[in-house]
Amino acid sequence: MGMTMTQKILAAHAGLDYVSAGQLIEADLDLVLGNDVTAPVAIHEMDKMNTKTVFDKDKIALVPDHFTPNKDIKSAEHCKCMRNFAKDNDITNYFEIGEMGIEHALLPEKGLVVAGDVVIGADSHTCTYGALGAFSTGVGSTDMAAGMVTGKAWFKVPSAIKFVLTGKPAKWVSGKDVILHIIGLIGVDGALYRSMEFVGDGIANLSMDDRFAMANMAIEAGAKNGIFPVDDKTVTYMKEHSTKEFTTYEADEDAEYDEVFTIDLSTLKSTVAFPHLPENTKTIDEVGEVEIDQVVIGSCTNGRIDDLRIAAKVLEGRKVAKGMRLIVFPATQAIYLQAMEEGLLATFIKAGGIVSTPTCGPCLGGHMGILAAGERAVATTNRNFVGRMGHVESEVYLASPAVAAASAVTGKISGPSELGL
Amino acid sequence: MGMTMTQKILAAHAGLDYVSAGQLIEADLDLVLGNDVTAPVAIHEMDKMNTKTVFDKDKIALVPDHFTPNKDIKSAEHCKCMRNFAKDNDITNYFEIGEMGIEHALLPEKGLVVAGDVVIGADSHTCTYGALGAFSTGVGSTDMAAGMVTGKAWFKVPSAIKFVLTGKPAKWVSGKDVILHIIGLIGVDGALYRSMEFVGDGIANLSMDDRFAMANMAIEAGAKNGIFPVDDKTVTYMKEHSTKEFTTYEADEDAEYDEVFTIDLSTLKSTVAFPHLPENTKTIDEVGEVEIDQVVIGSCTNGRIDDLRIAAKVLEGRKVAKGMRLIVFPATQAIYLQAMEEGLLATFIKAGGIVSTPTCGPCLGGHMGILAAGERAVATTNRNFVGRMGHVESEVYLASPAVAAASAVTGKISGPSELGL
Repeated sequence: MGMTMTQKILAAHAGLDYVSAGQLIEADLDLVLGNDVTAPVAIHEMDKMNTKTVFDKDKIALVPDHFTPNKDIKSAEHCKCMRNFAKDNDITNYFEIGEMGIEHALLPEKGLVVAGDVVIGADSHTCTYGALGAFSTGVGSTDMAAGMVTGKAWFKVPSAIKFVLTGKPAKWVSGKDVILHIIGLIGVDGALYRSMEFVGDGIANLSMDDRFAMANMAIEAGAKNGIFPVDDKTVTYMKEHSTKEFTTYEADEDAEYDEVFTIDLSTLKSTVAFPHLPENTKTIDEVGEVEIDQVVIGSCTNGRIDDLRIAAKVLEGRKVAKGMRLIVFPATQAIYLQAMEEGLLATFIKAGGIVSTPTCGPCLGGHMGILAAGERAVATTNRNFVGRMGHVESEVYLASPAVAAASAVTGKISGPSELGL
Repeated sequence: MGMTMTQKILAAHAGLDYVSAGQLIEADLDLVLGNDVTAPVAIHEMDKMNTKTVFDKDKIALVPDHFTPNKDIKSAEHCKCMRNFAKDNDITNYFEIGEMGIEHALLPEKGLVVAGDVVIGADSHTCTYGALGAFSTGVGSTDMAAGMVTGKAWFKVPSAIKFVLTGKPAKWVSGKDVILHIIGLIGVDGALYRSMEFVGDGIANLSMDDRFAMANMAIEAGAKNGIFPVDDKTVTYMKEHSTKEFTTYEADEDAEYDEVFTIDLSTLKSTVAFPHLPENTKTIDEVGEVEIDQVVIGSCTNGRIDDLRIAAKVLEGRKVAKGMRLIVFPATQAIYLQAMEEGLLATFIKAGGIVSTPTCGPCLGGHMGILAAGERAVATTNRNFVGRMGHVESEVYLASPAVAAASAVTGKISGPSELGL
């Protein structure tokens, strides 16, 4: 029996020739990630272990992205705790707000993750780096603490579902629509503790930013990780961003999969997840009349340069609907600067939107765009659970940047075609 | 006995030929202002009065600037209250976040205040519009409610202090330094319930943005209002921004002043107010070694285009000190866009700063840059009371944009001269 791509990476990091689903292994870690919410908890766990020393100061990334610029005194104290820890341990990859970004956009951009790596992060969307052909997964703060001290983590080797992607997506259909379609298909527990392995010649038609959005939301189907094969686009991306050596793994031909889905990307439409689960998907022609109050474009799912380019293409020369709050969050400082230089930010402002500093902010109901009772938002974020973006009586509709931008213009959930695009 | 400039405006709005200090009058209001903190309280007061109708839908300005984009559910509910009130009353000058700005920068920019107006606002820095030769002052939410219903307000006519400004400020010395110098001179209650009337040929050497910063901080000396005569710069500004007719008032030659101060602007140095009062001023050569963690450039005091130009001139081609958090807040969306088009925002980002949406944010410890215990900030804001920007054990040092920018580079309180500028 062969191994899946994920299993091969885990085997190599456990010093084993072969692993199989269900096996418990201890793997070496290439990177341990924490943010301003989870790292302080991990640091306190380290205190309990009576240790203050990390396994490798170059293999820990600490990113104050959730409640920064500091929302309140509590978040300021959490950031201070993390900052002091980074200083005491001479952590190479601590990022102050000026060099900052949302962790899952920042780490690939800074070249800290490449193909073949094993990464744990105390944040559920750590699975994002699967877009690069890495194994990465979210853990709790205690596991983060253990990882920071030992450089290792225990895993139960996951089984996998294979998604064979073929064809080319239609105009305005993006990776976000693909992953929402898949979650609608298999449900929010459809891939529970399994790998989602994406393969097929359709992948060549997906940009790196499409793939980041897809791997990012693997957790929304309950997956342990989502992972893509390494192709020319991946290699180009890594060479542009990283000096780290990478290793390419491919699944064995006789690897076992629990299920196989074949999806013709050319048949997909813009897809929206209705409240209150990412699996409640409707295609754009099925959404009906849903008036909205706010549009959020950004997050670790869809705050990258391609996402902003698409949104700007829709908003160029247009105005948001009267009373609409359009909030755009470039995912990193570098993306912010690039979007500014390309004129995208000017387009957003002229359309009547506002552009925030990079932060997780409203996605998790943190700050910078919280909803009141009865309010509705279309968001390019990743979760629409009850109260996710504010009041328990508010609603979040998950969509692509194209749909989010078009909806900001019309004031109701809309695809770009409603604007004649 | 003649009247001061302020007294003349008040007399005209009370339908009287003459008023004198201490007299109680009822004046017609040209504008009533509220924000997302104070307007909801005023709206509830109106409910108690059993009235829902405003005196003039064109003469009320409602600006959601303090905790927006909504910081949390509570602020979202406050904004919703104000938004619904604006809708129900068809308020002309309600500004959603995309057309928004910090109220005291926004209202002059939108042309809603001109010389000779009487304006009340449920925000202490409403005195800002004195830069335009208007009488404007901060009131409580109950007075705001009464103003919204009746279009009138009671005032005790203030006496005045005259500040005769002569000479031309040295390079890097701005209106902020002038007003900090004055507050240092007379103290935070030095002008209690009095007008601060600025006159003299030195005013010609102050930009409109210098004057806005000065009038803005009149309240920090306890003043009822601060006011400038109308000159060519004022007229040019009003013609660029407003279609409203304006009336110019000048103090009578025999107007009575409680005190007269003559200040030669050419002798002033960059000035910093140390914790925890705006009167604790030191000139830049007296500050000593004060290491800082954060720099905030923005607010209703110093978030205008001239302020950002000065800060960018200091930061151009430089980097902030390691670990420094530099947060720049353009005061309005229009200023944000202009600063972007002039390349100022790119300068801030490349220097390692971040650029926020317009909001009062950190100035009042609201959000977007709150300090932890023991942290120090240099801020171009207006108050440095205990806990103003966060933890009660944090410290705020008030300064000009030039000093704030230079301090961000050196990591300690510094003037531009320390950078060889």
